[in-house]
Amino acid sequence: MIAKTPNPPYYAVIFSNLRTEVSEGYEEIAEEMVRLAELQPGYLGHESVRDGLGITVSYWANLDSIKNWKANTDHLIAQKFGREKWYSAYKTRIALVERDYEFGI
Amino acid sequence: MIAKTPNPPYYAVIFSNLRTEVSEGYEEIAEEMVRLAELQPGYLGHESVRDGLGITVSYWANLDSIKNWKANTDHLIAQKFGREKWYSAYKTRIALVERDYEFGI
Repeated sequence: MIAKTPNPPYYAVIFSNLRTEVSEGYEEIAEEMVRLAELQPGYLGHESVRDGLGITVSYWANLDSIKNWKANTDHLIAQKFGREKWYSAYKTRIALVERDYEFGI
Repeated sequence: MIAKTPNPPYYAVIFSNLRTEVSEGYEEIAEEMVRLAELQPGYLGHESVRDGLGITVSYWANLDSIKNWKANTDHLIAQKFGREKWYSAYKTRIALVERDYEFGI
């Protein structure tokens, strides 16, 4: 469940979000987006948790792979639904991972 | 619940973790660490969720503020307890937030 990422540097996209009460279509599309993201060049892994607040962190080899995924046609449609139906608020942060360390992995 | 952070650049510390079944002392120390972190120079905010996997992202003005917090005496003791008792595994990633964007905030 903790993503196995290569040695830094690599990128993290931190997606912090709050849901609306609309669930129609959400689970199916969310699963499809995970499936599609995993197929993208430069995708390194992701971690996702929700308990009221949702945090999904996806890891990417470089900025280009993030830009390509953001502009993916199916993903653009999902982003539009996200703003219209599923998310009341979100913040996305694009960050260069400079160092990492671990325990018990 | 979504941290209000200033315009980039700033730093994110992504702490992804799995707990043991040992809960003795955990909640009290976790709350105390939040209280102490908020007092640190350079602390900008944090977001925390657990549902099996735990993800806590804290935001910091610069690397020095992260280093100072990591070396804080009370925090060092908590980190030691964390490895000995409360966490079966964790990964910490230190990342420079280059860009962010938001919706509904």
